[in-house]
Formats: sequence, structure tokens, C-alpha cells
Amino acid sequence: MAGTPSPVLALTTGEPAGIGPELAVMLATRAVPVARVVAVGDPALLAERAALIGRDIDLVELAAGDALPAPRPGVLPVWPVTLRAPSRPGVLEPANAAYVLETLDVAIRACREGHAAGMVTAPLHKGVILDAGHAGFSGHTEYLRDACGVDEVVMLLATDSALHAGQPGWRGGSALRVALATTHLPLREVSDAITGPRLTRILRILDADLRRWFGIEAPRIAVCGLNPHAGEGGHLGREELDVIIPALEALRAEGLALDGPLPADTLFTPRHLEGVDAVLAMYHDQGLPVLKYAGFGRAANITLGLPLVRTSVDHGTALDLAGRGSADLGSLVVAVALAADMARRGAEVAPI
Amino acid sequence: MAGTPSPVLALTTGEPAGIGPELAVMLATRAVPVARVVAVGDPALLAERAALIGRDIDLVELAAGDALPAPRPGVLPVWPVTLRAPSRPGVLEPANAAYVLETLDVAIRACREGHAAGMVTAPLHKGVILDAGHAGFSGHTEYLRDACGVDEVVMLLATDSALHAGQPGWRGGSALRVALATTHLPLREVSDAITGPRLTRILRILDADLRRWFGIEAPRIAVCGLNPHAGEGGHLGREELDVIIPALEALRAEGLALDGPLPADTLFTPRHLEGVDAVLAMYHDQGLPVLKYAGFGRAANITLGLPLVRTSVDHGTALDLAGRGSADLGSLVVAVALAADMARRGAEVAPI
Repeated sequence: MAGTPSPVLALTTGEPAGIGPELAVMLATRAVPVARVVAVGDPALLAERAALIGRDIDLVELAAGDALPAPRPGVLPVWPVTLRAPSRPGVLEPANAAYVLETLDVAIRACREGHAAGMVTAPLHKGVILDAGHAGFSGHTEYLRDACGVDEVVMLLATDSALHAGQPGWRGGSALRVALATTHLPLREVSDAITGPRLTRILRILDADLRRWFGIEAPRIAVCGLNPHAGEGGHLGREELDVIIPALEALRAEGLALDGPLPADTLFTPRHLEGVDAVLAMYHDQGLPVLKYAGFGRAANITLGLPLVRTSVDHGTALDLAGRGSADLGSLVVAVALAADMARRGAEVAPI
Repeated sequence: MAGTPSPVLALTTGEPAGIGPELAVMLATRAVPVARVVAVGDPALLAERAALIGRDIDLVELAAGDALPAPRPGVLPVWPVTLRAPSRPGVLEPANAAYVLETLDVAIRACREGHAAGMVTAPLHKGVILDAGHAGFSGHTEYLRDACGVDEVVMLLATDSALHAGQPGWRGGSALRVALATTHLPLREVSDAITGPRLTRILRILDADLRRWFGIEAPRIAVCGLNPHAGEGGHLGREELDVIIPALEALRAEGLALDGPLPADTLFTPRHLEGVDAVLAMYHDQGLPVLKYAGFGRAANITLGLPLVRTSVDHGTALDLAGRGSADLGSLVVAVALAADMARRGAEVAPI
């Protein structure tokens, strides 16, 4: 990478009453050689939170096309968005819902116009955005999907093994990546939501984006069964026989390299994970407990299927911690590192 | 433990066409200082499998009350049970179903009569036992439950951290233990199976047996929610509000130390696991993938709620591997070590 400047990433600072603004400040005081991060948010808010947590920070306001200042710990470039109402740590203010959404619009535009190579999102608060009258808002992922005009996106969580190398418990090898076939559904609705067309769409996106953003030439994906023991030949449920196996067979005929459906409890062992680039879990709690255990709680969330790079922290707004400077920066560091990697790889094959 | 002989454990050698007999042979050729293991099975079968895999073994047939030979690698004491028909590796023979069940009866009797301090089971093959006409047979756990005359048992899986100390990836700290509120059910039946009475019975057994067999004076149990994010206040399912929380409240009033219901994906992180003695997962694939990942595929299965110690390997008969000597002894070593620990601790408070 000699001579190649590190990619520019837009970091939306999220819910202003939460820990997002101070995480942006804390990140800026560390050296992050893998990316040049530009915060998207209110400069006055960022300055106030920096003072509150006792960090010395030099905010540099930029317009969309402006050159970035030289990267240096303590310098935080900002694409400004103005708060609609004052924000106090821990206190939600519906008037600022429009501000939060505007930070997303600014970051999306920066990606699409080529000023940023990707975006990283700090947490927003779904409830206050709904309370403010944005009916039907259901989160970052769906907002980005609609803003980018695509039909389906895939939630992928990943650990960044490079950041864990040498830490106690590090298992070596490559990062663990787990995609979900269904996300935030009550458990009793999961079985009916696993359909052939859904699995087909999701596996095609996962395969294509592992190639594009992760630089994996022939991705191998291990697919979990839905039922315990992957249904044990129909004794513990028929979805594997009736839905999952036929969908995988059809995709194999297209050339996808798929293992499974495998029992989820044996899949996540060294023998089965060897050579696997990503796991597709059928639902949230089948895949994420092991991912977050493996990542020491330091995983990041990636949205696949978009025409741009988007990663996110895997935690919420933590209203109770806001303004104290005690929030854990770990997931944001992983999210930035992954977005930087994806942006570099994506740029090699297909400029945004 | 100076001066205390290590506990005697009955090891049922399981399905004769599977890897059970050779695992018993392989175990006997290693020094296992934590326990004195007596195999329960056909001595001629064990001798034949030892020859087949090229292990030199000295089989010592014993009657129930006989003194054991001095422990020495290569010596395997046996409580004999006679095969009903010849057994070839990999070839199921329904006539031997009665043999497999008799090995269980012999081990149970040895525990109840005080000749063994606990039992460890190699895998059996459910299908061939059903084919042989033992209608309603549904596995070791239920057979033991009925043989011991109890109403409810609890499946607990555990890693033995002592065995992993120093291995790459070892996280330090104590073993991970995960109990299941439901076991081998199709996923679509899980939500309805989570009832207040079931949770109450299972948590009482888990609490009591962590005290009795694990020597934990005031067990702390972390309980997973059923739905993703533990239902997110009712937005992702109501079972937490309607069923789980009321059951936990009533048990707390009895003095049980219970955390939760917690989102399963954040529960399995160092911050939430600290000080927790066991996790109760609501279903198979919520708890076991992370347990088996943490245990490198070397976990053991423990049946709680019985008046005796019973542990088991966490794998099947592996008919395709039988007779080759290439099966992995790891889970059996864990199962023996855990049974020995439990037997020692249980003996301190309440002799069987």
C-alpha cells in the first residue's frame, strides 16, 4: 500500500444524547493509520462532549469537496450538520431525529459523490425517531437500503482477528464472519420466514460481496440448519429437507461453494470452520452469541447488498453512559478497520 | 486429596458397531489419574477392537463387588455384559440393542450399590434400538430418568477449562456451563414449550445440582431470553414479559440468584459471564454453538436431576470411523474428568 493514502470514511455520530459523539472524539485522539475518518455531526456538540470528557480536540470543519487536514491524533475533521435543539447526555429529544437522519444523508452523499470511500455509523435510537413522527423507520439498515434503492440487504457480523492477535484467547487464523438469513424477528416467526427465495437472494448477495469487498475469489460459505442437528433427517423438523437443501442445491448448480445445512453446534468448531469464509445462520441467536464470544464483544456489523461500504458498531446508544468518557471504543475500532479494508479492496475491482 | 483413592467410574461402551468400544480401549492406554474407569461391555468385543486398532490391552474381568486392579496404563477392568450377536464395525445389528440397554442397567446398578461413584456413557444408536422393538426409546437421558424414577432431568453441557489450560485459544477462568430449557425440538415448537412450570422445574434442578455436584455454594445462573434482544421490551416477542420474567421473579423470591432474561448475544461476553456459574439457554442452538466453540469441540454432556452422576461424550456413534482407531478421544476425556470431579464433590456432601 506504499504511496496509497488511507481511505476516507464518513463516521455518522448518531444519537446526540448517546455515546456516539464522544466515541468520535475518543477515536480521533488515537492514531488510526488504517483510515482517515471524517465525523458527520454538529461541531459544537462534538466540542462540548470533548470538553465534558476532558479530551483536547481540534475540530476542522469541511465542506463536501474540501481537502482533508493531514492525519494527526487530536485532529477531527467534520462534515457539519446542525442540531435542531440542544442535546444533553442521556436525554432524548425528538426534535433532533431529523438531525440524525440528515447525518445519514450527508454520509451517503459523500460516498456516492466519491468524497468518502465508505461510511461507519455510531448508534441511533429507533424509538425517538419513531416518536418524532418518522413512521415506519426501522433502523439504519433499512434506511440505507431504501436510500440506495436496493431490494434486499444482508446483515453480516465480523470480528477482526488482526486486532485480537496476541490477546489472551486469540484463536489465530482469519476473522469469523456470520451472516443472518433472518434478523430481528420473534423466534416463533423464524421458521416460516425461511423460504427458498429468501435464502437464494441472501446467499447470492453474500457470495458476491465476499468477492467484491473482502477480496475472496471463490468464497466458501457454511450454512446452518434451522432445527437442532439440522433436523436429523426429518426427525427434528422438515425445513432442511423441504426448503434449505433444495435452495442450496440450486445455488451450487450456479457455482456457489456451499457447505451444509450443518448442525449449528458442530459447525462452529475448528474442523468445520477451516477454509470457511463466512457462516450463514438462519436466525439471530443461532449465529451471534458465538460471533460475539469469539470477538470478545468486539465485533462490527456490516451491511451487504448496498452499492457502498457501510459498517457499524454492534452496540446501542448507551444513554446511561453518555457524557462520561467511559464507553468502550472497541467495536468502533473494529468497524473502522473493517470499512477501511473493504473500501481498499472494493476500490481495486470496482470504484464506487 | 492425599490418601483418597480416585473415584471409580462405570464407562458404558455403547453401540458395539460404533467407536465406543475402541474409545474405551484408547482411554485405558493413557494414564487417567483422575478416575479409575471400569468398562461395561463384552470383553471379547473389547479385545477384538483393541487388536483391530493395534493397541495392547490387558482386560481384567470383574464381578460387581470385586476389588479393582491397581491403575496402570494398558489395564482395563471390565464389568462384563455379553453381546447377543457378533458385531462388526460400522454394521448395526438390532439383536444387540438389548446388550446396549443391559450395559446401562449394569452401570446404574453399580452406582446405586456403591461399586461406582458415577457413570460415563459412550454413544448408543437410537435408531437401531427403536428398530429392535424398544418402542418409545428416546435416548440415554430419558432411559436414565425412567430407571431412576425422577420426573425431570436437565441437559447441561460443559467444557473443562483445566484440560485447555495453555492450549492456543484458552480464555482462562473457569469452565463454561450451558444448560438447556428445551432440547431436541423442531425450532417452530420451541416458543410454546417455554412455560413457567418448565422453567421453574429446570432452574430448581440446575441450582440444586450446581451446589451438590459442583460444590458451588450460591450458584449464579444467567438466563437467556427466548427472542432476539430478549424481546426488546415486547417489540420482538412477548414471551419474556409474559412467561420468563414472572418465573424468574418467583424463583428469586425463593432465593435463587438469577440474571436475566438477557440477550443471548451479549450474555456470552466476558463482562456478562464474569461470576456466572452456568447459563440457561432456552433452546439447543442458542446455547450449544458457543459452548462447543469455547470447548474446541471438546465438551461433555451432563444429566442433572438424577440421584447419580452421569456424564457423556457429546458426539455420536461415528459408524464410518469405527474400527480404525482414528476417533477423537477428547470429549471422553472431558466426560471422565467432569464425572470424577462431580463424584468427589457429591461424596463430600451426600453419599449416593
